[in-house]
Amino acid sequence: MAKELTRRDENYSQWYNELVLKADLAENSAVRGCMVIKPYGYAIWEKIQGELDRMFKETGHVNAYFPLFIPKSFFSREAEHVEGFAKECAVVTHYRLRTDDKGKGVVVDETAKLEEELIVRPTSETIIWNTYKGWIQSYRDLPILVNQWANVVRWEMRTRLFLRTTEFLWQEGHTAHATRDEALEETVKMLDVYATFAEQFLALPVIKGVKTESERFAGAIDTYAIETLMQDGKALQGGTSHFLGQNFAKAFDVKFLNREGKLDYVWATSWGVSTRLIGALIMGHSDDNGLVLPPRLAPIQVVIVPIHKTDEQLAAITEKANEIKKSLEALGISVKYDGRDTHKPGWKFAEYELKGIPVRLAIGPRDLENNTVEIARRDTLTKQVLPVEGIAQAVKQLLSDIQDNIYRKALEFRDSNIHRVDTWEAFREVIEVKGGFAYAHWDGTPETEARIKEETKATIRCIPLNNPAEEGKCVLTGNPSKQRVLFAMAY
Amino acid sequence: MAKELTRRDENYSQWYNELVLKADLAENSAVRGCMVIKPYGYAIWEKIQGELDRMFKETGHVNAYFPLFIPKSFFSREAEHVEGFAKECAVVTHYRLRTDDKGKGVVVDETAKLEEELIVRPTSETIIWNTYKGWIQSYRDLPILVNQWANVVRWEMRTRLFLRTTEFLWQEGHTAHATRDEALEETVKMLDVYATFAEQFLALPVIKGVKTESERFAGAIDTYAIETLMQDGKALQGGTSHFLGQNFAKAFDVKFLNREGKLDYVWATSWGVSTRLIGALIMGHSDDNGLVLPPRLAPIQVVIVPIHKTDEQLAAITEKANEIKKSLEALGISVKYDGRDTHKPGWKFAEYELKGIPVRLAIGPRDLENNTVEIARRDTLTKQVLPVEGIAQAVKQLLSDIQDNIYRKALEFRDSNIHRVDTWEAFREVIEVKGGFAYAHWDGTPETEARIKEETKATIRCIPLNNPAEEGKCVLTGNPSKQRVLFAMAY
Repeated sequence: MAKELTRRDENYSQWYNELVLKADLAENSAVRGCMVIKPYGYAIWEKIQGELDRMFKETGHVNAYFPLFIPKSFFSREAEHVEGFAKECAVVTHYRLRTDDKGKGVVVDETAKLEEELIVRPTSETIIWNTYKGWIQSYRDLPILVNQWANVVRWEMRTRLFLRTTEFLWQEGHTAHATRDEALEETVKMLDVYATFAEQFLALPVIKGVKTESERFAGAIDTYAIETLMQDGKALQGGTSHFLGQNFAKAFDVKFLNREGKLDYVWATSWGVSTRLIGALIMGHSDDNGLVLPPRLAPIQVVIVPIHKTDEQLAAITEKANEIKKSLEALGISVKYDGRDTHKPGWKFAEYELKGIPVRLAIGPRDLENNTVEIARRDTLTKQVLPVEGIAQAVKQLLSDIQDNIYRKALEFRDSNIHRVDTWEAFREVIEVKGGFAYAHWDGTPETEARIKEETKATIRCIPLNNPAEEGKCVLTGNPSKQRVLFAMAY
Repeated sequence: MAKELTRRDENYSQWYNELVLKADLAENSAVRGCMVIKPYGYAIWEKIQGELDRMFKETGHVNAYFPLFIPKSFFSREAEHVEGFAKECAVVTHYRLRTDDKGKGVVVDETAKLEEELIVRPTSETIIWNTYKGWIQSYRDLPILVNQWANVVRWEMRTRLFLRTTEFLWQEGHTAHATRDEALEETVKMLDVYATFAEQFLALPVIKGVKTESERFAGAIDTYAIETLMQDGKALQGGTSHFLGQNFAKAFDVKFLNREGKLDYVWATSWGVSTRLIGALIMGHSDDNGLVLPPRLAPIQVVIVPIHKTDEQLAAITEKANEIKKSLEALGISVKYDGRDTHKPGWKFAEYELKGIPVRLAIGPRDLENNTVEIARRDTLTKQVLPVEGIAQAVKQLLSDIQDNIYRKALEFRDSNIHRVDTWEAFREVIEVKGGFAYAHWDGTPETEARIKEETKATIRCIPLNNPAEEGKCVLTGNPSKQRVLFAMAY
């Protein structure tokens, strides 16, 4: 292979970092913790955006845009929010530079100091609820179902491309409702949208659940999340949907006249997913040869590579390849024909394997004679020869099969890695050796949760929705427990 | 009307501000100079984005994403760029807040001071060329044809919604080429893309031209622009495309091995349009009743309003309206049916006029009897009654006619407001009384340009492409001139 990857079983973390770089997805920038999302990585993000945006609109949401900057004082309004968010952020203190007197480039102009510092948004509840105050007078103004696609900044000390970066791209939905029930319904509806998206597009099975108090979004009454399992046995939170109650309405004094003619505070939700999903996509499916992309999110679904010795052969193959390309595109399939004669077929095969193109077609002189094509699938690395006639339908079916197959594979992996454990030893074995989820009894106290985290680094990923009631004893303390919860190491 | 607008001839500027607010396009935020783009305004931006993004991709470009923050020192690298850009920007100096000891919310943590300040990007040439250095070794790595959709910040003292805001949304293309000619070709190609978009979608005629030195982008060899004329006779620069030569490659040391095997600096372009285009769209077409949107960018192209007295009538009209809605949607037309019984038809008519919906259909009991519908066009405010049979085709044609008509109207207005002037008196009359462009001789010196600006506030908008050579005398100094240029007051 042109670009040798570290194997997953050698060093999973290094494999991931190398893959992101070698597949041209992203790289670190000159600004600590901020990434450059390269065209190939960004094309995946555009596919994610396109599908999610459609799903948001189908569920009645509209997009809007709110300021990047938030006045510092806004963060003090919601008591828990300030603890969770206002700490590690980028602070704008000045609005002008000036040429240095000593000719050393530019320096901050100390006379241009802001009266109140501005925070680069880590999340937008505060500025949005301050805005909603002007939009909402009566129940007739509700619900407000708004989403924003934006960049946000959270100052991170240890960063990893896509998974944890100081700046990242995301969407944040912020809705306002007249009743508690309606807001709760919205919270769960958007969790379901995320789950559907993850399963149908990312091809990643998810567990829907609710977070414990200590893992809750700062300012939320309840945080719902979708949890996925990566190939190294660590969990990754793929998206969250928060029921905010009336907390932000109270903090920003957003009242409305309800149907009964009485003033009440507005009910809120917020929900978001980010470029982190690209990290989940990579770690969920890819292998030692490179990326494995689900066809429904692959920027290029099919690549056609000519195999030739002479220019005449190349010309004839190119003609045939373009015919096939057209017939595929007519079915809505995205195709690249790589007819470059600066690179050998073997180099191209490795390159497109690395980049996770789901289907590769190769055409050689003998294929021309026989009117056949060699078709290789990226997920299983298997090949077969098919007649050109009917190839478009065959490829379409194959893309669908690949999408199903990688989902099924991830599902089997996930299901075989949910371990019911009843003893502390078994718990530690899952967390420290086996990997995956430990489905264990917990006594429900934040203290026990904290001790478990301290001793094993495992956290409660969620309490699954529709979790069966089950009497038992806490895996750590032996105290009575009414249900099992999911613990795991997590990204 | 439900929401009375100031008339354009009373106070154009106030008309604009009121219209932006009352049509729910945008509003000022709690952060000075930063706007909230409301859902209806953002829907227009999404239409603009969608079309431009398609055009960029059709011309071979791909999207990527670069950091929001730029190290301060980067701005000192390109001598002219720093003068033009690094002055009025948002400066991040700290990365943490802490709870105030005296319990007064949060304060900046002085121990978390950045070693080097970060600038919130006012434009991204510096961070991008610093990145390109790692991407380019040989001519085989070229061209790089990248675009970015992003938010940028330029600290503005006097702001107006859409036209001039501290934060705005835009796209910035940044391309890298092996030769001067190829970069120049790209610069002009993207200018053409902007011109085509403005004329075919915004329905605004443009003049393509090149900027004088004093109006040039800081760091460019040449700046090309499209100039449009607003209804108050002021010009508005709709988009710019810059030929950057090797300036940024030299500043960031980006060299490549050319086909001859020699090291050379890379050639560059950059080009951008922003949410300012929404301001141009509003000021170019709208009237005293509200917005006039070109059908090709209108989020809702057709609204259907029922006119009824009884609930039975409403039910029957709703059924008919939904049939019509379906037949329109089958032709790709976006339709809203407003069957609310909380608002009267007259209120709805005024509301949708204000919001610039291109076509309004009204259906009353007599229409039901006759199987007709009343169709009103927003641009001319004229109405007619048409049979329901064939209505979808008729509406489709009408949308096309409206698009053409508002373009033609804007074109006639623009053309009748380009004034050839040969004396200083005539020049001042155009600038100070008549409005529009003064097409006048200029001696070619920055000094004269500056004096004219000082005396009249008029600037040289551009030297039109393919401008005919013409001997003459400068309108201010009487010195010899070889061509006329376009002066105007400008946004």
